[in-house]
Amino acid sequence: MVKARRQQQKRCWGVPLLLVVYVGYVGLGAGVLQALERPAEARAAQHILRQRWELLANHTCLRGPALQRLIEVSPRPDGAALRASREYFSFNTSFLSCLGYGNLSPSTVAGRIFCILFALFGIPLNLVLLNEIGQLMLLGVQHCAHRLEEVFHWQKKASLLIKTCALVTGSLLFLLLPPLLLSDKEGWSYEEGFYYSFITLSTIGFGDYVIGMNPDRTYPSWYKNVISLWILFGMAWLALVIKLCINFLESSSDFCQCNKSMAEEL
Amino acid sequence: MVKARRQQQKRCWGVPLLLVVYVGYVGLGAGVLQALERPAEARAAQHILRQRWELLANHTCLRGPALQRLIEVSPRPDGAALRASREYFSFNTSFLSCLGYGNLSPSTVAGRIFCILFALFGIPLNLVLLNEIGQLMLLGVQHCAHRLEEVFHWQKKASLLIKTCALVTGSLLFLLLPPLLLSDKEGWSYEEGFYYSFITLSTIGFGDYVIGMNPDRTYPSWYKNVISLWILFGMAWLALVIKLCINFLESSSDFCQCNKSMAEEL
Ligand SMILES: [K+]
Ligand SMILES: [K+]
Repeated sequence: MVKARRQQQKRCWGVPLLLVVYVGYVGLGAGVLQALERPAEARAAQHILRQRWELLANHTCLRGPALQRLIEVSPRPDGAALRASREYFSFNTSFLSCLGYGNLSPSTVAGRIFCILFALFGIPLNLVLLNEIGQLMLLGVQHCAHRLEEVFHWQKKASLLIKTCALVTGSLLFLLLPPLLLSDKEGWSYEEGFYYSFITLSTIGFGDYVIGMNPDRTYPSWYKNVISLWILFGMAWLALVIKLCINFLESSSDFCQCNKSMAEEL
Repeated sequence: MVKARRQQQKRCWGVPLLLVVYVGYVGLGAGVLQALERPAEARAAQHILRQRWELLANHTCLRGPALQRLIEVSPRPDGAALRASREYFSFNTSFLSCLGYGNLSPSTVAGRIFCILFALFGIPLNLVLLNEIGQLMLLGVQHCAHRLEEVFHWQKKASLLIKTCALVTGSLLFLLLPPLLLSDKEGWSYEEGFYYSFITLSTIGFGDYVIGMNPDRTYPSWYKNVISLWILFGMAWLALVIKLCINFLESSSDFCQCNKSMAEEL
């Protein structure tokens, strides 16, 4: 019991430390990537402006509004506008968590090589961070179960009750409530927000829905930070749930004994 | 030794069995998704055709070639053409492995809900399959090391030598040679092929490069199957390498002892 509490304290300190290392690493990467990509972006932005003027000059029937509509209909190619360093930061966090929405991607050879090197240490770092957060959540749940057992002298009931509570609270906090915030800030329907939440937390990241990209809307300053925290903790939670699903899948097949005896041998 | 061999045999049987289950699950999902998405696709295709004709009728100066160029420059919106069931199959495999290139994504509410339910069991199934393939690779490497020890009476040298060989062979087979095939079939440079390989195997999947999508090129029939097998085995291999990187990261930090003692307690 004392040992478990010491572990919990250690982990409570470990997670903020890892977070600081992670944020520092991502910030450093954002700076380097911006330095590598900016010249190419500036060229691309100029090229698009020039093409637009050429089209206008050659097709005189296409006046401002009609051309504008055509350009608006066609999605903006990568690197069409200069990006702020904040955008590189959020690109890097979505990149290292293997989301890869695809609305941004490196366009220069140097940027691509940097991304590969950056990911080689960044992805394991991100996985370790998610794992630590997940373990912290698990420890918290176990701590609550212990408390309940001590107070009410329940044995197995407490563990089951707490696990169900944790699953329900997690589902509410990470999957069912965020779509409400998203539908308020992005103008999506609840169903679209839920779809976005699932595709994001499962690290699939199609990129058909991306937050903070609608130029017609103003976003409060806390919005992106809250979403980042939600993604971090939500991914850790969903990874934990998927891990439990895998344990269930494996224990219901023959592989279970095989894996256990192998783990003992290794 | 006998026990290890029995495990290896069991695993040799388990992987094909899992593969059959996986392919069946993906095929079933492809059928359902096609049934759900086809009506919306047909409507979208008709809508785009109608828009094109309206533009032609209103702007008489924009004759065929100029309009065609404009439409070609703007990426085709989702669901612009009816998709073959093969495309749904490859969409589902990239979806369940959390790649999510984003060139395809479900456009109807029913299709999205189905995708979420489909992923709930599909992603764990995919993870179990990748894990089994990785463990099979590891067992193969250990088997080779045992053989070398028996024949040449080397002790630790054999293990180190075999591990280095496995890493070099894996890098060649999964990262350094595939770009040559890709540059031949897709017309990408070696650097672009390598970037695609890394972004794919790490499950980031930006979608800025996707195979088999160039309408100007003809692809041999074996091409997509070979790429699918490469992705499956390559992901298992890269996951194993990243797992080893994580072990290294964790063992070089304080968390190691903490995790070990927790694993004992759980
Ligand atoms: K993606
Ligand atoms: K992804």
